[in-house]
Amino acid sequence: MSYMTELGARSLAAKPGLACAGTRQKNQALAAIAAALRTEMQAILNANAKDLENAEAAGMNKIMMDRLRLTEARIQGIASSVEELIALEDPVGLIESGSTRPNGLRIVKIRVPLGVVGIIFESRPNVVVDAACLCLKSGNVSLLRGGKEAIHSNTALMQVMRRAVESVGLPADIMQLVENTGRDIAQEMMRLNGYIDVLIPRGGAGLIQAVIQNSSLPVIETGTGNCHIYVDASADLDMAAAITNNAKVSRPSVCNAAESLLVHADVAEQFLPMVKNILDASHVVLYGCPRTCAILSDALPATEEDYAAEYLDFKMSVKVVDSLEEAIDHIAKYSTHHSDSIITRSLESAERFTQAVDSAAVYVNASTRFTDGGEFGLGAEIGISTQKLHARGPMGLKELTTIKYIIHGEGQIR
Amino acid sequence: MSYMTELGARSLAAKPGLACAGTRQKNQALAAIAAALRTEMQAILNANAKDLENAEAAGMNKIMMDRLRLTEARIQGIASSVEELIALEDPVGLIESGSTRPNGLRIVKIRVPLGVVGIIFESRPNVVVDAACLCLKSGNVSLLRGGKEAIHSNTALMQVMRRAVESVGLPADIMQLVENTGRDIAQEMMRLNGYIDVLIPRGGAGLIQAVIQNSSLPVIETGTGNCHIYVDASADLDMAAAITNNAKVSRPSVCNAAESLLVHADVAEQFLPMVKNILDASHVVLYGCPRTCAILSDALPATEEDYAAEYLDFKMSVKVVDSLEEAIDHIAKYSTHHSDSIITRSLESAERFTQAVDSAAVYVNASTRFTDGGEFGLGAEIGISTQKLHARGPMGLKELTTIKYIIHGEGQIR
Repeated sequence: MSYMTELGARSLAAKPGLACAGTRQKNQALAAIAAALRTEMQAILNANAKDLENAEAAGMNKIMMDRLRLTEARIQGIASSVEELIALEDPVGLIESGSTRPNGLRIVKIRVPLGVVGIIFESRPNVVVDAACLCLKSGNVSLLRGGKEAIHSNTALMQVMRRAVESVGLPADIMQLVENTGRDIAQEMMRLNGYIDVLIPRGGAGLIQAVIQNSSLPVIETGTGNCHIYVDASADLDMAAAITNNAKVSRPSVCNAAESLLVHADVAEQFLPMVKNILDASHVVLYGCPRTCAILSDALPATEEDYAAEYLDFKMSVKVVDSLEEAIDHIAKYSTHHSDSIITRSLESAERFTQAVDSAAVYVNASTRFTDGGEFGLGAEIGISTQKLHARGPMGLKELTTIKYIIHGEGQIR
Repeated sequence: MSYMTELGARSLAAKPGLACAGTRQKNQALAAIAAALRTEMQAILNANAKDLENAEAAGMNKIMMDRLRLTEARIQGIASSVEELIALEDPVGLIESGSTRPNGLRIVKIRVPLGVVGIIFESRPNVVVDAACLCLKSGNVSLLRGGKEAIHSNTALMQVMRRAVESVGLPADIMQLVENTGRDIAQEMMRLNGYIDVLIPRGGAGLIQAVIQNSSLPVIETGTGNCHIYVDASADLDMAAAITNNAKVSRPSVCNAAESLLVHADVAEQFLPMVKNILDASHVVLYGCPRTCAILSDALPATEEDYAAEYLDFKMSVKVVDSLEEAIDHIAKYSTHHSDSIITRSLESAERFTQAVDSAAVYVNASTRFTDGGEFGLGAEIGISTQKLHARGPMGLKELTTIKYIIHGEGQIR
């Protein structure tokens, strides 16, 4: 039995125990994890120091180093996030619907955990806690594989959590870390059918594409966002400038940040200098179509790659369009189907845009930055789905479950 | 542009037109299709005759020939099935939920079509009509790839449908047949990301595994069923025998037929001869564990392969178990998570079984044969999902849709 198959078998063995655990026991485990993160803080910081030391020796840049760094305040924050899960509704056991059929069969559609959730991530060490605890609350066994740059931190966090889980009587194997960070192990994990029920990649576009291309497991695609703001001919231009600025600069590194600005030709000459004036305060570099460059002399010429880019930076592509339909076609061609927004005063334009744009979240007169589990009222999120199967948009606890039909009869045959 | 990419591009181009079509127009298209199937019956029968001729020349067996054969009565039946879709509720546009957030954003979660649905099938020619019409009613563009043995029939049926669709003002490309039945074309179809939103294989276990292993598209796994009947110590044995017989012999070739019988040791000596007596009328061959073979002298010894087999035939594996837990463990090991049933008078056993068995449909005192869209009240089904993402169990029109968030604001920024 290979290393990865053995981990899979241990996850599989832990599945029935967790599926049958009640909400109270799962909440006790969450409370124990939060407490342990605080009491064992020093051990976690020590492990993190090793990762930071290795990262520095390897010449990692400052931004990446900052992402990797754990501090007392950050661990306190992680522990508080775990505690916030306790108050959220447990989706397991919710009755979705039910009926009595003409033949007397009583059919109930009930929510149950997905089973074993595999997560491949490359982000900050907090992901190991977030993901494992979201899975725990939703009754799922988690099998997590992070990057090698955070291996000491991830291992320490997982040890703390597993001990806490055992302290309330649950099997430690309901959460496991894949400690071998080799590429071949990740490849094997992506094809572990029969052990892993669902695979969720969390990270950049490269990771997500690698998983989509190579996995034979059901995958939930998350997170890449080439989000658009379209300023219609009838837009309130002050509102449009404020929304564009917020969507671009409030947190450029996240998937719901806007990357492309489309402006109706009727208002381009008035609007483009207005929005540039605001974006200049954050030194946003604009990549424009020829008409944009004619209006904004210091915009750089946009290429096809710019229209398709998820910059995650203080950069934005800009295009002047002759009609709402041209904007819709541009979005259909370049959007990653995450979040797109129209700024308009026209009811007709708003209705056409929200119907025609095929994205997880379509906005009228608001910033794309609101596409988020917390902002949508889900309480917490495991990611934002940009695919159409199972879940679309922010995925909370309910999206980490599936359904099961339970049918009671008195001897019915067909 | 390759042949397959060109078909994909045509599907993609047809998507917006169909997504915006109202229920009335879609129903008109269904009525036109049903009418055209009847008026153009002779052309369809002529095309089918060519397939039958080729099949006979190739030495196809009688059962397969019968599956391939279309008759006037069968085409009438297909047309009637299309008409039945007209009365079903259109899932597109259903509001799933909605809320006004503290910041005033109004969020609505609305049902929308999946987009372009790819279907790879190997069954009877009626699948081309069923699948295309279920997709049409749910607003989805369909791209269908059948087997080469039915290519003339499938092509004729598709031509009739496309003309009918155009006659009510919808683009013909909302449904297309992949007329090149080469293996490499199927491989290319499985990796047509960017054109196809979801891929649904319909056919035997071999086809489904090939799609799971090779596709980079989101796949809905359907249909393989190694279904179990477990006869508990407290079962009503007459009921248990009647249910076992019904689940095994009423239609052995379908996925919800039972393949394995588990019997509690306390009742094995009494029950096994009873059920054998009934199954003998249908000449069912039993493959038993040593204890079964000791009780039923003409049962054949079961192998590991027998416990895992989806026979789709008048064959059944049989095992005597010492406890409910042993039955649950056996099902966990061998079930395809389709449908499993317990026959019991014990409330405790029923509750434990329905909680612990991780299948799409878990029955108490009823035949597994009821796992079916029609029997569950969905009206029609595109298949039965045995995976956990998106849909589980019978998939009707609603399971052919996804959701979209539409958010209205008045300039909200974050």
